[in-house]
Amino acid sequence: MKIYLAGPDVFLPNPLEIAAKKKAICTKYGFIGVFPMDTQLDFGGLTLYQKGMLIYRSDKQLMDECDLIIANMTPFRGPSMDIGTGFELGYMAGQNKPLFAYSNDGRLYVKRVKQVTPGLDEDGMNIESFNCFDNLMIDGAICYSGGDLIVGNAPWGKYYTDLTIFEKVVKIAAGKLLKN
Amino acid sequence: MKIYLAGPDVFLPNPLEIAAKKKAICTKYGFIGVFPMDTQLDFGGLTLYQKGMLIYRSDKQLMDECDLIIANMTPFRGPSMDIGTGFELGYMAGQNKPLFAYSNDGRLYVKRVKQVTPGLDEDGMNIESFNCFDNLMIDGAICYSGGDLIVGNAPWGKYYTDLTIFEKVVKIAAGKLLKN
Repeated sequence: MKIYLAGPDVFLPNPLEIAAKKKAICTKYGFIGVFPMDTQLDFGGLTLYQKGMLIYRSDKQLMDECDLIIANMTPFRGPSMDIGTGFELGYMAGQNKPLFAYSNDGRLYVKRVKQVTPGLDEDGMNIESFNCFDNLMIDGAICYSGGDLIVGNAPWGKYYTDLTIFEKVVKIAAGKLLKN
Repeated sequence: MKIYLAGPDVFLPNPLEIAAKKKAICTKYGFIGVFPMDTQLDFGGLTLYQKGMLIYRSDKQLMDECDLIIANMTPFRGPSMDIGTGFELGYMAGQNKPLFAYSNDGRLYVKRVKQVTPGLDEDGMNIESFNCFDNLMIDGAICYSGGDLIVGNAPWGKYYTDLTIFEKVVKIAAGKLLKN
């Protein structure tokens, strides 16, 4: 079975390094890991926007070829996870594939949003308080897909790179989906 | 045709007020607008988490009943759009439904992320520079679904509530999808 390895990992200074580590862990548990940058793309002569569109189509195709997703839900540029990864969880959910996810931040969503007055943020918008680790659409989708969301707190300085919790999720996915 | 009206609108102090306004605009152009809070839910005896899961299932069912989505992509608690809305775009994309979206913030994504050193944010993570209005998975999905993304700058104080650009998108969707 192929796992789509979603996450803000693609924005790391050296994304192929973590890609290799994640794939090795997938292999260890009997899966094939697929990283969003796996397809060689020819950017020759393309504008920035056209390059972006080509990457979208490539990643969509990779998702279509995968049987499940393991998403890195570690908060990215705000209290929530990376929006591209959230889209990808939705895309796989729309195809009824199992969603697994992990976060290297063990705090509930409400603990990460700056509360100005009780229950409201600085824009006066309500803050979700359903004891979820992110927006309930994310936690709910994972729960009802038959997958799992595992969280913990990565060692200082390894917020985006520690793979301890990622490996736990791969092991859980193997127990649920692989027969051997 | 039914439009799923996704967005951080659900977090407004009075979400049903904007829901009614959006639905009226949908009706004006020949659509039926569906708001994520349309289903009456019985929260009696449920824990906070169980309430969240019930809302997820309800919204998933509403999305399954809708033919297209119009997402409010106005940035929410950071440089990107609301993560729940991003998930919902993905969910509809996974079912090959047309995606339409609008943002009341006309700046490109790169203009909204605080750049510490060129191309890098404060965590040393790369900043996408594909001339998209959010992560390329969002812009790409809308583009290739046959939908449209329209952006502009709402008047001061109406960042989450101005519906001028929303109405433009509904009109465009009607021109593309409704025959009359």
